[in-house]
Amino acid sequence: MTPEKLKSPSRRADAARNREKILAAAREAFADPEVEVSMAEVARRAGVGMATLYRNFPGRRELLEALYVEVVDGILAAAEAGEGEPAGERLTAWLLQFLDFSTAKRQLVAELLSVDEDSRAVFNQNRARVLAAGEPLLAAAQASGEVRAELSLAQVLELVIAVGKIRGEKEFVEPILAATLDGLRPPD
Amino acid sequence: MTPEKLKSPSRRADAARNREKILAAAREAFADPEVEVSMAEVARRAGVGMATLYRNFPGRRELLEALYVEVVDGILAAAEAGEGEPAGERLTAWLLQFLDFSTAKRQLVAELLSVDEDSRAVFNQNRARVLAAGEPLLAAAQASGEVRAELSLAQVLELVIAVGKIRGEKEFVEPILAATLDGLRPPD
Repeated sequence: MTPEKLKSPSRRADAARNREKILAAAREAFADPEVEVSMAEVARRAGVGMATLYRNFPGRRELLEALYVEVVDGILAAAEAGEGEPAGERLTAWLLQFLDFSTAKRQLVAELLSVDEDSRAVFNQNRARVLAAGEPLLAAAQASGEVRAELSLAQVLELVIAVGKIRGEKEFVEPILAATLDGLRPPD
Repeated sequence: MTPEKLKSPSRRADAARNREKILAAAREAFADPEVEVSMAEVARRAGVGMATLYRNFPGRRELLEALYVEVVDGILAAAEAGEGEPAGERLTAWLLQFLDFSTAKRQLVAELLSVDEDSRAVFNQNRARVLAAGEPLLAAAQASGEVRAELSLAQVLELVIAVGKIRGEKEFVEPILAATLDGLRPPD
């Protein structure tokens, strides 16, 4: 195998494109929790050979981990958005994004745990990244008096996750989430 | 078998005592979800013979249903408490009681479903009883402006159940529940 630094720029671009094609195919393939997708199927969907797939991701676990880190990266990027907006609104917007991402995350977590119980280390590491990204948002919203001071970010996230798991029609579930987020405002 | 109305008062009292002994034994025996308890074990714990047990409860399903109805009766009785207190506090107190009961209820529901998928009819019927008991409490608290008007009782109960499922140390979980109940107050 040619070491990365000796490759021509176009070969490096090809390699990055392959990696992205594999991740996109895997993201889509793993989205349906009912279907167990093989590595061969991922390669087929990505339009790459098995050698290319395994060069990028030595196994199912590495592929799932990459997808998981990608989701967490999305949560972190969302924490950067809305700069200049009121701290309370910025936090609420981020919590909603966090919730969107966490549905995808939950599936990957389940898949990862089914491959390897040791994935807990990956979760803990990424959980720490999420907390570090969200903490300044919560601190700002608490400092400005827009969000109650008695909850930590871990507690706020558990609350949002719990409410996000409530099943039902959109018209039933959405007002519960809206009231919960609104209820984070401090009492007078 | 002697018809109930021909029995002497003391025999009727005996029968009621036996029924209560069986329910108490079953309540305790079924409290541990890890252990599958047989009908024979329930009879042994209650100190009654198998004939007496089966005369009261023809099967595991009838026994579980009786325990389930008992829990729901407790939720209904709790709705009667606190008359004369501010409507918001009365509702909150009831929601906390509802949550206490619902842990026991959840186990019985799981057991019942494992015996018979048709138990759904029993759940729906008892769910209607809970809603009927709690609705006046919510209506009063909304009318007095102590609780936000946009949520129905079904929504409030789902929220409380969801928060009640959050796992963790008491010191972590309790403030989340307290903030949630406090957050039911309407925004200014």
